[in-house]
Amino acid sequence: ELKEELENNMYPVDLADLMEGFSQKQLVMVFRLLAKEEAAETFSYMDSDLRELLINGLTDSELEEIMEEMYLDDTVDVLEEMPANVVDRLLMATDEETRQQINQLLQYPEDSAGSVMNVDYIALRKEMTVAESILKIRQVGLNRETIYTCYVTEKRKLIGSVDVKELLTTSESKKIEEIMDTNMLYGRTTDDQEDVAGIIRKYGLIALPIVDHEMCMVGIVTVDDAMLVLQEEATEDISIMAGVNPSEESYFGTTVVEHVKSRLPWLLFLMLSATVTQMIMNSYEAALAVMPQLAGFIPMLTGTGGNCGSQSSTLVIRGLTVGEIEFHDLFKVIWKEIRIAVCISLVLSVVNGIRIVLMGQGDMLMALTIGLTMACTVVIAKVVGCTLPLVAKKVGLDPAVMATPLISTLVDISTISVYFAIVSTVFQL
Amino acid sequence: ELKEELENNMYPVDLADLMEGFSQKQLVMVFRLLAKEEAAETFSYMDSDLRELLINGLTDSELEEIMEEMYLDDTVDVLEEMPANVVDRLLMATDEETRQQINQLLQYPEDSAGSVMNVDYIALRKEMTVAESILKIRQVGLNRETIYTCYVTEKRKLIGSVDVKELLTTSESKKIEEIMDTNMLYGRTTDDQEDVAGIIRKYGLIALPIVDHEMCMVGIVTVDDAMLVLQEEATEDISIMAGVNPSEESYFGTTVVEHVKSRLPWLLFLMLSATVTQMIMNSYEAALAVMPQLAGFIPMLTGTGGNCGSQSSTLVIRGLTVGEIEFHDLFKVIWKEIRIAVCISLVLSVVNGIRIVLMGQGDMLMALTIGLTMACTVVIAKVVGCTLPLVAKKVGLDPAVMATPLISTLVDISTISVYFAIVSTVFQL
Ligand SMILES: [Mg+2]
Ligand SMILES: [Mg+2]
Ligand SMILES: [Mg+2]
Ligand SMILES: [Mg+2]
Ligand SMILES: [Mg+2]
Ligand SMILES: [Mg+2]
Ligand SMILES: [Mg+2]
Ligand SMILES: [Mg+2]
Ligand SMILES: [Mg+2]
Ligand SMILES: [Mg+2]
Ligand SMILES: [Mg+2]
Ligand SMILES: [Mg+2]
Ligand SMILES: [Mg+2]
Repeated sequence: ELKEELENNMYPVDLADLMEGFSQKQLVMVFRLLAKEEAAETFSYMDSDLRELLINGLTDSELEEIMEEMYLDDTVDVLEEMPANVVDRLLMATDEETRQQINQLLQYPEDSAGSVMNVDYIALRKEMTVAESILKIRQVGLNRETIYTCYVTEKRKLIGSVDVKELLTTSESKKIEEIMDTNMLYGRTTDDQEDVAGIIRKYGLIALPIVDHEMCMVGIVTVDDAMLVLQEEATEDISIMAGVNPSEESYFGTTVVEHVKSRLPWLLFLMLSATVTQMIMNSYEAALAVMPQLAGFIPMLTGTGGNCGSQSSTLVIRGLTVGEIEFHDLFKVIWKEIRIAVCISLVLSVVNGIRIVLMGQGDMLMALTIGLTMACTVVIAKVVGCTLPLVAKKVGLDPAVMATPLISTLVDISTISVYFAIVSTVFQL
Repeated sequence: ELKEELENNMYPVDLADLMEGFSQKQLVMVFRLLAKEEAAETFSYMDSDLRELLINGLTDSELEEIMEEMYLDDTVDVLEEMPANVVDRLLMATDEETRQQINQLLQYPEDSAGSVMNVDYIALRKEMTVAESILKIRQVGLNRETIYTCYVTEKRKLIGSVDVKELLTTSESKKIEEIMDTNMLYGRTTDDQEDVAGIIRKYGLIALPIVDHEMCMVGIVTVDDAMLVLQEEATEDISIMAGVNPSEESYFGTTVVEHVKSRLPWLLFLMLSATVTQMIMNSYEAALAVMPQLAGFIPMLTGTGGNCGSQSSTLVIRGLTVGEIEFHDLFKVIWKEIRIAVCISLVLSVVNGIRIVLMGQGDMLMALTIGLTMACTVVIAKVVGCTLPLVAKKVGLDPAVMATPLISTLVDISTISVYFAIVSTVFQL
């Protein structure tokens, strides 16, 4: 009955989740119950520890069957995560031709289009008729991850693409060259996986052909993998924006020590750079001794500055990611942020001034002084916040690094400098 | 030559971008050069101001052609953004049956699966043979956004699905009921669009069938739209996490006043809540007058606390979004964060203690006091940071709201309370 349940009601991705925590014996038993296509797909979704456990429990011929059924992009992902002795055993379970293709794929840099592509696709020739093309799909389609876009090649060079929708809705006697799209989109093996996935999203494609530097077709990236790439890249950006070095593992899949390692560097850097703020404040120790209530306004000022800065930097970073904002927009962005900052600082200063007077935390002069500091803080925070990500992008850094934590620290320093400069002038301290 | 360029080298989405800033005359001229399918697709990618300008320049019969060519999900998106008089004119340009379908679609709540679905799909019956099915695709396929997954219905109820890959690689005489997948995934019209898009991503689908409460098939959500939904939702999360009320418009597409409106509420709220910090500090005014150097440590302490809290909250929010973390993991998450916090606070306290002594900012006693405060801050920040998003999710709030800015403010308050409690005890102030 377990077998029936497995065959009818379980998707490989769910099954891989479910097996988390199974013993080797259980894993092997479940795998022997699966049809080989399901076994291969489930295998490609498992996490690496579990996979290693399973591999050690399977016979060579069972391993061979799985390796045969997997699409090469998944095989490469599996191999990238395995220790050398397991890799050797897996490669041994593969035929000569596949092994060469795998070795080729393993050479593409991490996060490149080459590293996520699949080498099996439907290739047509321009002289073929629609009927001949459909026949070819019938013959080889079963082993292709997607058959829905076919690629026309001539001496291995990519010269066009044809959708199966087109093949199925046009006359069977037409030649491929009459119906193919010669202005097709494509990526290069060395392109960033995120850019390639972005093209698939922007143009709503099922797959994107990947060519080498001579326009020879070498593979395709499919939409399902593009979605996973975009999810992974969004997680990466969000982590970096919060001052966490990104990892490809999940939250629970990361050990405490690894979490500490990925969070400590930024915390240390930011803690030490806060020393600057402290030095500025210490130089105004005498003023603080005379008017200790000045200290009370600091968390509100730096907090507001930090929040203003992170609003701007976050919107600009996101604009860069989705392709709306580019470096040449720098002055357009700054000008927009300055106008926004002026409006915001007016409202915040007035509201805060009223609050100070009403709560008796200061007189009109204090309200004006804090208001002036607030206005400067908001403008500085917004300008710094929108400029840094653009500059980072320009010099080849990841703009996400310029987000919240770094901005807060810079804004803290400028806020406190401005604050004490203003109060020491106004109150003649 | 413009015409040729338009036909051969321009994708509708790029053309829509390019036309940004065109006059009505130019818009209409370009549109008259386009084939009607391209015109309709370009129209669906334009932004709403431009679209309105164009509509006012087109004749009724031109409008009719565009409305006829558009897929209904896009038509609905267009209508949702138009003023009433334009909506009337557009609906007038539509035939009776389509108008009814449009009105139906317009009734689904915003961000529901119903609001992003398409009502045109390939429906098969279980008695049909593979050959008959392919014939049906030939006949109706041109008007369907995707033909690659077909749905088997019986008395309008969804009973199975068949991939075109299956149809093309199996014997033509087989019956659909022999090859259909009866355990297909589906969504409901009232599901959140994000959940439906998440299913498409998780299972690598080309489209997901959408059913009503009686399991009657009413439409499909296609993978291209799912990708856009996921992008939009990621942008929304990232904005909320930075304290910006999300808008569906782009950065430049949002006016200064709208930017101010979307950023002010959180800034005001957070600024006013910083009053609490100020009140705590004011109650220690005497202590600050005696030891004004105590104020200098505050930005470093609150900054570190804020950064620790935002690391934890961000990772938990992302874990919730991608479906890895759920509410019942609460204690597992807290326990993990406590262990991480202990390791981090040890390192930070020691490094900071050494710095204080080396820079002469205090003696050993001061170093120990700050270290103790730091350790408490880090632990509180991490626990608050990981708990709030989970609780928010549980009570039906958007977890993203619990991110950086709110956490920083809460952490500021607890850090300063702890700090003054500790220093006033140690230094007997
Ligand atoms: Mg890979
Ligand atoms: Mg990566
Ligand atoms: Mg990347
Ligand atoms: Mg794949
Ligand atoms: Mg796959
Ligand atoms: Mg990135
Ligand atoms: Mg809609
Ligand atoms: Mg929305
Ligand atoms: Mg939503
Ligand atoms: Mg659509
Ligand atoms: Mg579309
Ligand atoms: Mg959301
Ligand atoms: Mg802060």
